[in-house]
Amino acid sequence: MKVDGQWCRAIFAEGGDPAVVKIIDQRWLPHKFVWVPLDGVGDVISAIKDMKVRGAPLIGVTGAWGVYVAVVNKPGLQDAEEYLRQECGHIREARPTAVNLAWAVDRVLEKVLAEPDQGKWAEAAKAEAERIADWEVENCRKIGEYGADIIEKIHREKGGVVNILTHCNAGWLACVDYGTATAPMYAAHDRGIPIHVWVDETRPLNQGSRLTAWELLQHGVPHTVIVDNAGGHLMQHGQVDMVLVGSDRTTYAGDVANKIGTYLKALAAKDNNIPFYAALPSSTIDWETKDGVSGIPIEERDPDEVRFVPGLDPRGDITPVLIPPKDSPAGNPAFDVTPARLVTGIITERGVVAPEEKAILELFERG
Amino acid sequence: MKVDGQWCRAIFAEGGDPAVVKIIDQRWLPHKFVWVPLDGVGDVISAIKDMKVRGAPLIGVTGAWGVYVAVVNKPGLQDAEEYLRQECGHIREARPTAVNLAWAVDRVLEKVLAEPDQGKWAEAAKAEAERIADWEVENCRKIGEYGADIIEKIHREKGGVVNILTHCNAGWLACVDYGTATAPMYAAHDRGIPIHVWVDETRPLNQGSRLTAWELLQHGVPHTVIVDNAGGHLMQHGQVDMVLVGSDRTTYAGDVANKIGTYLKALAAKDNNIPFYAALPSSTIDWETKDGVSGIPIEERDPDEVRFVPGLDPRGDITPVLIPPKDSPAGNPAFDVTPARLVTGIITERGVVAPEEKAILELFERG
Repeated sequence: MKVDGQWCRAIFAEGGDPAVVKIIDQRWLPHKFVWVPLDGVGDVISAIKDMKVRGAPLIGVTGAWGVYVAVVNKPGLQDAEEYLRQECGHIREARPTAVNLAWAVDRVLEKVLAEPDQGKWAEAAKAEAERIADWEVENCRKIGEYGADIIEKIHREKGGVVNILTHCNAGWLACVDYGTATAPMYAAHDRGIPIHVWVDETRPLNQGSRLTAWELLQHGVPHTVIVDNAGGHLMQHGQVDMVLVGSDRTTYAGDVANKIGTYLKALAAKDNNIPFYAALPSSTIDWETKDGVSGIPIEERDPDEVRFVPGLDPRGDITPVLIPPKDSPAGNPAFDVTPARLVTGIITERGVVAPEEKAILELFERG
Repeated sequence: MKVDGQWCRAIFAEGGDPAVVKIIDQRWLPHKFVWVPLDGVGDVISAIKDMKVRGAPLIGVTGAWGVYVAVVNKPGLQDAEEYLRQECGHIREARPTAVNLAWAVDRVLEKVLAEPDQGKWAEAAKAEAERIADWEVENCRKIGEYGADIIEKIHREKGGVVNILTHCNAGWLACVDYGTATAPMYAAHDRGIPIHVWVDETRPLNQGSRLTAWELLQHGVPHTVIVDNAGGHLMQHGQVDMVLVGSDRTTYAGDVANKIGTYLKALAAKDNNIPFYAALPSSTIDWETKDGVSGIPIEERDPDEVRFVPGLDPRGDITPVLIPPKDSPAGNPAFDVTPARLVTGIITERGVVAPEEKAILELFERG
C-alpha cells in the first residue's frame, strides 16, 4: 500500500546481484519510518527476534528471504549444504513457535538444495522467496475483493459513509501487502466507496493506534483512533456499520482467536445487530480444533507490556512510561476467542463463508 | 482507608483555629503521594479546576471545606456576607457542571449565614463541612456492608478466593473514604473474606491502573492490573466471579451510566452468567430519566486524552508520550450506558435493589 504517496511492501528486494532485502523496522512506527537492509543472517534473525517485523505472513516471508541472504553470504571454504542447513536452523529458531516461519524457510531451502548447480542457488532462493511473498499478497488481495463486496453492499443499502470498526493490526505491515482485515478497507476505498474506520488502539501493545492508524493515514483512508473501551458505546448509537478484524487462528467450526478484546467487540456487535466479520487466509485455519474457547491455548505475555507504555516523548525520543504503581502485579493474556455464534462471516481468499463446520469444510474441500 | 499503613481520608482538616484543610494531589498518583494544604480560596479553586481532586462526592466535600477556608480568610475591612457570597460563587464556578459542588457549597453557606454572630462562622462552616463529609462516608460505608454480604455469599457458595473485576476508580479517592465500587471490596477484605480484584486499567485516563490499583495496594487487597480488553477472556475461563463498578448516573429504571467500557464488561458478564453489580449512592440516581441509552448525554472529551499517555519516565518524571501518528484524529466519548437488562443488582446505601423501576422507586419511597 502507499507510504508518503509511494506504493510499497513491508519487505522487498532491490538491486541486482546480490539484491538487497529491506524491511521496515516497525518498532519505531508511527513516529519514525525506517527501512533496514538485511545484509546477513544475523540481521534476519534480529529482525524476527526483536520484532522489527511482526505478523505471521511477514515473518514467514522474512524467513524465506533469509534463506536467500544466507545463500548470498555463503563463505567460500565450507560444505555449502551443511552451512545452509545450519543457517536455516538459526532463522527458524528466531521464533520457534511460528509455524509459518519454519514452513517458508524449509520450502525455500528445499528448492535451493534441489538445484545441483550451486552457482544457481541464489537465483533459486530469490525466485522461491518472491513466489511465497506473491502468494501471500495474492491471498490478501482476494480477501480484499471479497470483503469489499460486503462493504459495497452495506454502502448501497445504507447510503453514505460505511463505518467500520477494527481491532489490532491485521494490515499490510503484518502481511507484506494489503493485509487481511484491512484489505477490504483498502479495496473499498480504492473502488471509491466512502468508508471511515474506527481504529481500536488495542492495548497493551497499541498495534491499532500505532500501526493501523499509520497505514490508513498513509493510504488516505479516513479513520479515527479510539480507546478499546469506546466501541460498544459507538455501536449503541448507530455509529458502526460493520466490525472487521483479522485472526491468528480460526477453528474449522468458526471460532476466531484474535488479539485480546476482540470477543468484547463481537458481543457488542451481536447486541446491536451489527455484522461481525473475520478476514483471514485459510493457512490460519486450525483443522484439528473445533472448540476454540477450550481448545486454543492463550499465550500469557510479559506483564511489563501492560505496565509500561512506550511513546513519543516531548523531546522526540521513544520513551516507555510506567502507568500503575510499581508494586502492583499485572496480567497479560494476549488473545481471546470469539465463539462462532457471534461471527457473521469469515472472509477468506476463496470467498466469504459462514462460521460453521460444514460450510468451512466444503469451501476448502475437506468435507 | 489505609496509606502506608495509616488510615486516612481523601480530604481532612487538622489543627485548631484555623484548621488546615488538606487534600491529596491525585494528579501524581500512583507515583507520588502528596498532601496539599488549601490555604486560600485560590487553592480550593485550583484543586477542583486542575483535577487535584476528582469524583463527585470528593469535589462536593472540597467545596464544602472551601467555604470554611473562605471564612477563615475573610479580610477585616469589608462586607462579610457579600465577600462570602462572592467567594462561594467562585468556588462553584470551578466546575459549573458539578451538581454536587454547588449543592455542598450552598448548604455550608446557608448554615454560616444563619449564624448571626460572625465570630462563630468558622465554627459553623467547619461543623457543616464535617457533617457533609461524614454523610458521604457513611453512605459509602453502608454500600460497603451491603456489597460485602454479596461477596460473602459468593465465597460461601464457591469456596476459595472471590475474583472481582472492576472498571475505573469508584474508590475512596473519589469519595472521601471507602468509595462506592471499592467499598464492598474493602469491607469483604476487612471481614477476612479472601478476595482478588482484576483492575481494568481504564483507558484513556487509566484511573484503574493509576488509582484503584494504588488504593488496593495501600490497603493490602490482592489485585492484578489488566488491560480493558482482557476481562471477556478471563470471564470465559472462570476467572471472574463478579463484576462490580460504580456509576456516575443511574436512571430510575436501572440503566447505569459509568466510565466508557463498562457496557462491554456487562455484556461479557451476561454471556458468561457472571453477576454484574453497580454500587452507587442514591444521590446519583436520575429521577427524571428512564431510558439511559437515549436519555443520558455522553460527554465527548479532549482527543489528546486518547493520544497522549502520561506516566513515570525512566528519569522519575511524569511525562506524556504520544501513541498514534500525530496526524491521526482521535475520538473520546467518556461514558457509556449499561442497559438494566445486563445489571444483576444495584448496591445503594439503603440496600441492594433490582434494576427495575418499581423496585427502585419503592426502596427510595418515590412510588
